[in-house]
Amino acid sequence: MSDVLEARPRGRPTRFPERQYDVLRTAARIIGLRGFRQATLSDIAEALDMTRPALYHYAGSKDELFAQCAAIAAEQLESALDAAHREANGLAQLHSFFVRYAEITCDDFGRCFVLVDRSEMTPDQSVRSRDSQLRIGRAVADMARTGMHDGSMRNCDPVAVSRALFGIFNGMARWYQPKKGRSPSKIAVEFLSLFTDGLRPL
Amino acid sequence: MSDVLEARPRGRPTRFPERQYDVLRTAARIIGLRGFRQATLSDIAEALDMTRPALYHYAGSKDELFAQCAAIAAEQLESALDAAHREANGLAQLHSFFVRYAEITCDDFGRCFVLVDRSEMTPDQSVRSRDSQLRIGRAVADMARTGMHDGSMRNCDPVAVSRALFGIFNGMARWYQPKKGRSPSKIAVEFLSLFTDGLRPL
Repeated sequence: MSDVLEARPRGRPTRFPERQYDVLRTAARIIGLRGFRQATLSDIAEALDMTRPALYHYAGSKDELFAQCAAIAAEQLESALDAAHREANGLAQLHSFFVRYAEITCDDFGRCFVLVDRSEMTPDQSVRSRDSQLRIGRAVADMARTGMHDGSMRNCDPVAVSRALFGIFNGMARWYQPKKGRSPSKIAVEFLSLFTDGLRPL
Repeated sequence: MSDVLEARPRGRPTRFPERQYDVLRTAARIIGLRGFRQATLSDIAEALDMTRPALYHYAGSKDELFAQCAAIAAEQLESALDAAHREANGLAQLHSFFVRYAEITCDDFGRCFVLVDRSEMTPDQSVRSRDSQLRIGRAVADMARTGMHDGSMRNCDPVAVSRALFGIFNGMARWYQPKKGRSPSKIAVEFLSLFTDGLRPL
């Protein structure tokens, strides 16, 4: 699963027929732009130039559309963890993961995954989403621990490193505007260099 | 205005009668906990042991309650900027501001100010909130510029510093749970030391 996504990071997982994938990406984009509550099935159908009954062929409700979008985002993020784990040391793992995290969360599926508040989700989806976020958060704290063991990082609290980095990058998913300025990965590299090198004078 | 708030950072601005202030703090707490949409006037009245008609004496709608809560938070944040500007150099200004920012945004008014999405607000309130956030963001980028001029910070992009710090601390307003563990100011000091000193081995 990861290899397919890594080879085509913005591409369509092969298990989705093209039209279904278009429907999901459009749903993710509109939910990300307008918020879960404000986005309606009619908005999504209209953006797809589709009738609402035709949209029901792909998902019976907005909750179902969101669940499918969140599953794609979670898969992209797992794949980013797999790729990061292949780096040589803990600091390089953190850099690799968060460059990819920025790319994913500034794109449709990831943005919708990060921005929809759990209070908006069905109870089942809220649990799935929390579990996925906890697992990814723990994996990132482990990368920081690895970095302290292998000497690529100074000693500090790995959970604080993880929380600070997710704070920076989830914030970016909120303010990033795709049509303005630099790519998510370029901005990510700048944030990572700032956070890695600190603010003190050289 | 700022002096009143600074002398009693968690206290009641003197222009609010005590009962009105209780009403607003409770509204802010419930909106912060449940989300703007999920929180109802009935929830707020119930938490105050008040009837809904009695609550209408203080505010005609949830939008009005939120506007008053947001105004108190904005005033606390302006006061935090004033206090920070009295520090000796740019880096100390950033530290002073963000310790106070963490205290404010982990308390009822600030939490509600940070967590309510602008798409949930009335158009007027959304503009006020955006203007206030832009002004504070610019003031923080200016502190970073000051730090580069006075030598307390290395050369880096002041807007990136501001965005990264707001990302970390707005994230904290989301995950912080008042009844667990350390105070917001202690956590803030740890984040600031992490971000200031960087991740590289000593």
